[in-house]
Parts: sequence; C-alpha cells; structure tokens
Amino acid sequence: MVKIIAINAGSSSLKFQLFDMPSETVLTKGLVERIGLDNAVFSISVAGEKQTDVTDIPDHAVAVKILLAKLTDLGIIKSLDEIDGIGHRVVHGGEKFTDSVPITAETLKEIEVLSDLAPLHNPANVVGIKAFKEVLPNVPSVAVFDTAFHQTMPEQSFLYSLPYDYYEKYGIRKYGFHGTSHKYVSERAAELLGRPVEHLRLISCHLGNGASIAAIEGGQSIDTSMGFTPLAGVAMGTRSGNIDPALIPYIMEKTGDSVIEVLDTLNKKSGLLGISGLSSDLRDIEQATEDGDNRAKTALEVFASRIHKYIGSYAARMSGVDAIIFTAGIGENSTEIRARVLRGLEFMGVYWDPALNKVRGEEAFLSYPHSPVKVLVIPTNEEVMIARDVVRLSN
Amino acid sequence: MVKIIAINAGSSSLKFQLFDMPSETVLTKGLVERIGLDNAVFSISVAGEKQTDVTDIPDHAVAVKILLAKLTDLGIIKSLDEIDGIGHRVVHGGEKFTDSVPITAETLKEIEVLSDLAPLHNPANVVGIKAFKEVLPNVPSVAVFDTAFHQTMPEQSFLYSLPYDYYEKYGIRKYGFHGTSHKYVSERAAELLGRPVEHLRLISCHLGNGASIAAIEGGQSIDTSMGFTPLAGVAMGTRSGNIDPALIPYIMEKTGDSVIEVLDTLNKKSGLLGISGLSSDLRDIEQATEDGDNRAKTALEVFASRIHKYIGSYAARMSGVDAIIFTAGIGENSTEIRARVLRGLEFMGVYWDPALNKVRGEEAFLSYPHSPVKVLVIPTNEEVMIARDVVRLSN
Repeated sequence: MVKIIAINAGSSSLKFQLFDMPSETVLTKGLVERIGLDNAVFSISVAGEKQTDVTDIPDHAVAVKILLAKLTDLGIIKSLDEIDGIGHRVVHGGEKFTDSVPITAETLKEIEVLSDLAPLHNPANVVGIKAFKEVLPNVPSVAVFDTAFHQTMPEQSFLYSLPYDYYEKYGIRKYGFHGTSHKYVSERAAELLGRPVEHLRLISCHLGNGASIAAIEGGQSIDTSMGFTPLAGVAMGTRSGNIDPALIPYIMEKTGDSVIEVLDTLNKKSGLLGISGLSSDLRDIEQATEDGDNRAKTALEVFASRIHKYIGSYAARMSGVDAIIFTAGIGENSTEIRARVLRGLEFMGVYWDPALNKVRGEEAFLSYPHSPVKVLVIPTNEEVMIARDVVRLSN
Repeated sequence: MVKIIAINAGSSSLKFQLFDMPSETVLTKGLVERIGLDNAVFSISVAGEKQTDVTDIPDHAVAVKILLAKLTDLGIIKSLDEIDGIGHRVVHGGEKFTDSVPITAETLKEIEVLSDLAPLHNPANVVGIKAFKEVLPNVPSVAVFDTAFHQTMPEQSFLYSLPYDYYEKYGIRKYGFHGTSHKYVSERAAELLGRPVEHLRLISCHLGNGASIAAIEGGQSIDTSMGFTPLAGVAMGTRSGNIDPALIPYIMEKTGDSVIEVLDTLNKKSGLLGISGLSSDLRDIEQATEDGDNRAKTALEVFASRIHKYIGSYAARMSGVDAIIFTAGIGENSTEIRARVLRGLEFMGVYWDPALNKVRGEEAFLSYPHSPVKVLVIPTNEEVMIARDVVRLSN
C-alpha cells in the first residue's frame, strides 16, 4: 500500500490529488490558484468538504510547502515519509517521450528543451517539478505526458503536407494532446464493453474547455484532432480550431494586429466565445440558446457540427467504429451537445436512446442494446492514470 | 442555334472554348499563354488538331483580337456577328452573387470590389471581361462564379469559430471554390443514377492540382473543404490544405520568413511537392512510389487519407450518402488515388470493383450494382456550364 500524489502545475496554479494505491482511493484533492499574485487561494477537500484559505503564496515551492504542511496538519497523512511517489502532468513530450518516464536530471532537461514546442505549458510543468524536488528531494517522481499516447500515430496522420524538412529540422508535425484522458477512457470503455481494447476501434471525444477527438484502434491512438498545438481541430471554448491558414495575413491586414495578436485572438477570443459574443462556457451558451439568442444557437451548432464531422471522418479512418465515447466537462454533462453530435449517424450503425442521454457525470451507455456501435459516457480521470504510472515506473 | 464562347482568364493567360448551343458541340478550343511576356503562345484546336503560334501579345485585349481573327481566318465562324454570347469564369462572387449574372457596368464594379477577397484571381478575370467588352462591346456577356454554387451552405458550415464581427466587418467566412465543377458533376450524377438531384446526397471529389470536396444535398452544396481561399481543406499539388494555425508564427520564427512568405510556402511549396520533395504532379509521385521512393509514398498516403476522411465526415454531415463522385485530372484518371480513397468504406455501404476502377477519363460506375452507395467517375465540364448559363441569362 502506497500513497501517490498527482500534480498538474500551471503558470500560476497547482492542482493536486492524493491517492492510496493500488486501491485508487482519493485521500484528498485540491487546488492552489493565483500563485505569485495577490490573494492566492488554497483549496483542499477534507472528508468531502472543501476548505479554502486566502493567503500569500509567492511561488510554487511555497505552494508545495503549504500543501504538504496541510496534509499532515489535517491528519490526512501522519508524516511526509508516507508519500511514496509524485506524478507530474507534462503537456509536451515531443517525439522523445512515447510513455511516462521517471524524472531524473536528464529527463528534466529534455522536458525543458521541449518548452520550445509548448512555451505556454512546459515551463509551468517544470516549475512544479522543481518545487517538489526542492521540498521532497528523495521521493521518486514521474512525468506523464499529454502527447505520449498519440506517439503511435502513423506518418500519414501526423505529417502536415508542408515541406518535409520542416518536420526534420523543426519538429513540425501533429502531436495531439489530452492523451492521458483518451487513454483512460479507451481502456475503461474496453472494460465496460467486456472486450479486449486490442480488438476495438474507438472514437474518443474529450470535450472540455479544450476539446479533442481521437481515433483509437487496438488500444493505440492512430489520429487526433489537435495538432502541433492544442489550437487545432474542433471549435472550443475560446479556441478557433482549424481555419483557412490564409486568414491569418488577411486578419492582420484588416485589423492591424501582429501575427502574435492574431494568434492570441484565435486562442482566447474565438470558439464559443467568438461566435456567441457571450461566453466561452457551454452552459451559458445553452441557456442563451434556450432564451432565443440566435448567435448562441449558431455557436452551439458550429461546435457540435465539427465534432459530428470528426466522428464520420475517424470512422472512415478505421473502416468503421465499435464505440464512441464522450468525456470531460461537456462530454460528461451536456445532453444537448451529445444529442446534436449523435443525430444522423444511423447510417454507420449508431442507434442511441434520448432517455439514456439524460445522464450527467457518470458512466453510462447511451446506445440501445442492439446498436452495432456503442455510445458511452465515461468521466475522465487523468489523475488516476498519473498515479498508476508512478506506481508502475517507481519500482 | 447560337454560338457561345466560354472564357477563363488568368493573369497572363486566356483559355477559350466555342460552343454551338443548345447542342453543346465544341466548335473549337484553345489557350493563350504568356500574355505580356516574351514569346506568347497561342494554341487552338482545329478539327482535332492543335495549331500553335509563338507571337507577341502585349495584353489581353490583343489576345482577344488575335483569337477572334483566328476564328474567322480558320473558317470556324464566318463573321464575328455569329458570336451570340460570352461567358466569363470569375473566381470570387462573395456573398453578393449566388448565381451567374449578366455583366453590366454595375456587376463588373462589384466583381472588382471582390478582388479584395481574391486578389490573385478576380483582377485577372476582370481584365478578361474588359478585353472582350472592348472588342465586342455589343455581345451579351455573363459572369459565372466559382463560389456561387456554395452560397447555399448554412451558417453552421460557412462560419469560422472566430469573433463574429470578423464575418460582419470583413466578410471572413468559408466561400468554397470549384462550384461550377461540383454543380456540373452533381447534375450529371443524377442523370446517370436516373434519380432527381433533389433526392440525392452526393459527395463530389474535385481532384486536380487544386482539390476540393463538396457535400451536396438535394442539389445544393451544404459544405465544402476549401474555405475563405482555395488554400484550405485537403492536401493538393503544392497547397498545404488545413494546418494548425499556430504553425504560422512558429514557421516565421524558425525560418525568419515574413507571414507573406510563409503563406507563399503554404500555397506553392507544400502539398505533394512539399512532402515528396519531387513534384506537384501526382503522376510523378505515383511513378516514384513504384520506384521505391518512401517520401513519395508518404505524400500519396497523406493526399489520399485526407480525402478519405472528408468522405466520412461529409457522409456524417448528410446522415449518409447516395453516391461519391470523382472528377478533374486526378479524380478522372488516378486508379491509385481512387483505390486508396475508397478502401475501407464498406462500413458505410461503399462496395466497389477494382476492375471497374481501371477506367480513365470517361464516365463510369466504379461501384458494384448491389452497392448501396454508388461510386462514379464523371469528367468535369465547367465550360459547358458557362455556356449554358450564358444562354439562360442572355435571353
């Protein structure tokens, strides 16, 4: 019996979840926000109740110290010696990391080098890793990459039709993200279907504020909608997904924005927010649509339609599909989006029950028992995947 | 019985085809190249034989004069009075033109304004129109737009998930191209299938040096792969098709290129040429693949795979499909690409015969008679569509 802490560090935040393994019991979880800013907020769940402190947290190392002190103060663990391993989510593993990896001086250096590919994410992940190294230098730690699961994609999926030396010289290719989530739900789907994952063709729809679709054949990712960065693919909360690349200079010319400013618009002011002009939160868009707002309705339609088309495209990619999975905030909870995405897929064997589709936030089949293609809702659990990989790799 | 000339003017070229209508007999056709450059070349077919002159042609008006003189000199027509109408291909009709239109001072002005959306194409089309106006001022002429057929797309297809005011202020949306070709083959498919086009769901694959896929429901385009410009969608001879938009600043940073130079790379050095490093011509890529060139093989795979995925995606878009159509240079002739595109679509009812797939350049069914989804090769004919619209609109 071991205790593993799973960490997801952002530039000013730190999410944590403490597991008892192999039971996979969550002992506690929480979040530190506004690190380095005024009025940082530390929240932690204790026996199902959330405690929140507002305090000064100048950097991640201090956040880690406060977190560890809380764990003993609240009696969740008796001493820090009980922590047997730490798992860190790392966004970009490039082509170097095809699996999770124990963190050593060498692997940490590689992760830092990969910041070139993920300047918005990897540096924050590295700060989290270093903060724990400082406070708990002797506890084994493991890096779990968002990209690793997609490294099985064949060249015809990951290669852009750009000059080939851009791939060789600059690493320009599709990497894909949300890999830990796609892997978790695909393995869980196999269990729920009672069939080995090696025999299954799955389409996994991770629909959160960021959203990606993956084609998973025989347990391996063979295609995914995000690309070189998490901007590509379907429309998202604030991200545009794919657009005609020629729009970038056109927008620059019309608005006077620099290319960086245009990219900022594509990342932060597009998607549901851009079309609706209201919100990046799907719940607001659904409410506004009910209230008769036409642009909100269009935003819903565009969002759902792109996912719907990816499902057709990935079914073609795998010469058919055995199950479609919905996960993450929107996938687990939005009856409306799932209905719009699933409507009209009977031609490829998808038959689903509107009554079953009312489910929110729990594992469920949406398909009729006779449907050749099964449809499932599976709440994702990236943290447990991280904890499992720490156990697997720290022996 | 009337004679109509169909014109496709480029910046330094002029393609023409003279029809006898309504029989749709081609009386002659030809091409003027290198207008305004040294050693312009005028070619014309006479009774199936090609005649070529190398001469000095300073501008399009001179090209038109030479062309018209040739028509009488060669006895194809007795006098210029026999020309009853002129049809001009125009690339961009914006949201203004949902159908072909008689050219007046007013419509010509609109076409010039639309050059903002198609700076590489509309100005050349306008030069062609003006050249004919100068030489044959009293002959009715009609503009036929590449975008018009796609103006039936609903908002959920044509809207990018960008700030909505980009659409309202700058006309940023998906327009789609090759419309005249997609319309021609969809109407011809209905004839070959013996069913009214209003009852059909068709996927049309126009695969030439430029390539686009269209979803055509009830005779109307409801989605297409090209976007704001002809750069978007599938990989092409030299064009990248869709890429992660975040690659543009990344490529700029790595190569030191300006945004315009990057777009030039995406338009002219990508696609089959970019991946293979050999050629933008699919025939060269097929040959090199046979000769064991791995990058050529990858280029083939990427090219075919993207089209294959669009077919799945557009089948989902229309809740199924009745027929898939291949047209244009590659679509009409490449057994290899058609086979790669069609392989593995049995799950959606596509059953095709490799023996039938050997056809090149003529109308044919590739599907087995029992296949629920029919597959057709239909050589495109944009020129006859132009001639028909001239007849329809000059009465």
